[in-house]
Amino acid sequence: MERRDFIKSSLVAGAGLAVASSPLASMTSCAPCCKMDKGAQLNISFQKYTTPQQTLAEKFDYMESLGVFGYEPHGGDLLSQFNEIEQNLRGRNIKVSAICAGFSGFILSEEPEKKQLFDTTMREIIDAAGQIHSTGVIMVPAFNGQVPCRPHNQQTRDFLVEELKNLGEYALQRGTTVILEPLNRKECFFLRQVADAAAICRDVNSDGVKCMGDFWHMQEETSDFAAFISAEKYLQHVHIASRGTRNTPSEDGDLDNYVDGFRGLKAIGYKNYVSFECGTKGDKLQVIPAALELIRKQWEEA
Amino acid sequence: MERRDFIKSSLVAGAGLAVASSPLASMTSCAPCCKMDKGAQLNISFQKYTTPQQTLAEKFDYMESLGVFGYEPHGGDLLSQFNEIEQNLRGRNIKVSAICAGFSGFILSEEPEKKQLFDTTMREIIDAAGQIHSTGVIMVPAFNGQVPCRPHNQQTRDFLVEELKNLGEYALQRGTTVILEPLNRKECFFLRQVADAAAICRDVNSDGVKCMGDFWHMQEETSDFAAFISAEKYLQHVHIASRGTRNTPSEDGDLDNYVDGFRGLKAIGYKNYVSFECGTKGDKLQVIPAALELIRKQWEEA
Repeated sequence: MERRDFIKSSLVAGAGLAVASSPLASMTSCAPCCKMDKGAQLNISFQKYTTPQQTLAEKFDYMESLGVFGYEPHGGDLLSQFNEIEQNLRGRNIKVSAICAGFSGFILSEEPEKKQLFDTTMREIIDAAGQIHSTGVIMVPAFNGQVPCRPHNQQTRDFLVEELKNLGEYALQRGTTVILEPLNRKECFFLRQVADAAAICRDVNSDGVKCMGDFWHMQEETSDFAAFISAEKYLQHVHIASRGTRNTPSEDGDLDNYVDGFRGLKAIGYKNYVSFECGTKGDKLQVIPAALELIRKQWEEA
Repeated sequence: MERRDFIKSSLVAGAGLAVASSPLASMTSCAPCCKMDKGAQLNISFQKYTTPQQTLAEKFDYMESLGVFGYEPHGGDLLSQFNEIEQNLRGRNIKVSAICAGFSGFILSEEPEKKQLFDTTMREIIDAAGQIHSTGVIMVPAFNGQVPCRPHNQQTRDFLVEELKNLGEYALQRGTTVILEPLNRKECFFLRQVADAAAICRDVNSDGVKCMGDFWHMQEETSDFAAFISAEKYLQHVHIASRGTRNTPSEDGDLDNYVDGFRGLKAIGYKNYVSFECGTKGDKLQVIPAALELIRKQWEEA
């Protein structure tokens, strides 16, 4: 909280010279380290159903009119509508951000055929993701409901690290990555915190294995700022939603505060996408512009 | 790494007025938020066998000569030598910091008698800790070798939170706390990261339940800075050791870098103890002063 109360620093930058000052701040408030420009960019991305239009062309037109240049397709759609997506992107500024899952089976399954199914379908999506220059394919090691699952212990973590090494190197050869997503406890007890996902990336030690944070699931964190700092070079993607009901940012009023997290993103010089993964309570055509205004304002404030 | 390379800020503080500037820092380096004085203090603490002397009086004389005013007794010693410890503290500036474990059984045991043994012996130590004004009693939920242990799942986490609530309220009534310690994977897979311990504290929601970080076990973290920021108000204790072999700080040369972590401690205004839990490779009478010099220098630098 305290970190949010400081008086905004003025930042004067010359060629190789920067002066940050925090005037009139009391000695008990904190000068945010993220005030120095590390080149972070707010690149917003939408999923297919973020926008209300029917066709991809209409969706992309609307996104461009809002200054949104990232698109996060579902992995299933990427495979079944690859040509349609690729054709609709031509001549636009919009690029594909991450790919949202879409594979079958799961990596920690105890059933060989389900593990094999994951290996096969995940690689199909990685192939397509690479072809369309996606930043990476999002994956969850095991949802709570996915059973039988390997037990939650060090052996399973070692197995995961080894499997991810292979998968990451495969993705890297195709010009993309795999992105571990921590979820909240109700969806995935196995991986709930960004620092844990980052530690797995560190142990895997492949440029093809990255992690992400989702402002909704980050209800598990005690500090959004610290979570993103812990991920640093491994942070490849961010999901955003309103923080009370997982709808569109701004729909939950004061709960929708992303400043501490954005400060973390600025501190690590984050340049990947902040992508909407959320529902909508109201009229999308009103709610989406309001969400963008809120997010852009909080990014400036951070 | 980058965060360590900035040019040291100058800090000018007046009554309620602070100006932090980072001269000549390039735009890609980071002005550390922790440069603002949040009242953090470096209070060093030793365990019994940190010092080479035979009697407590000799140990305490030596500690005072070095400016070390915290003492972390083992829980077993606290019970068996309570009067001796208390008498030796009289008329000195040394205070008891945390109490290092000492209970029998463990909180996540599946055997009722072992769980009962934990409840009884832990409360005995808490009673003594409160009487001697300790900051808290350190506990690990389950070492890897402690079996049969409740399975690692959400139900067990819920059980732990409920049990800790009772224990924390008990400790609070006696003027002390219980302190969760994350260990590295080889010792305790169940709780490895400071952010996870902090999230447990948040869920327990008792001022009697806190957490700690141990620079040795923090090999599990990707960022010492982020780990301590995530703990913030829950951080009640810190252990320190050399970072390659768990000996005395400075004995592992360049590996013994605590600056990033100290920056985190400064950023949260940490005022509790940084306590030695480590062996010694060399002559204690030479190594301990060298360790203190290194730690104090790095604290200033942070």
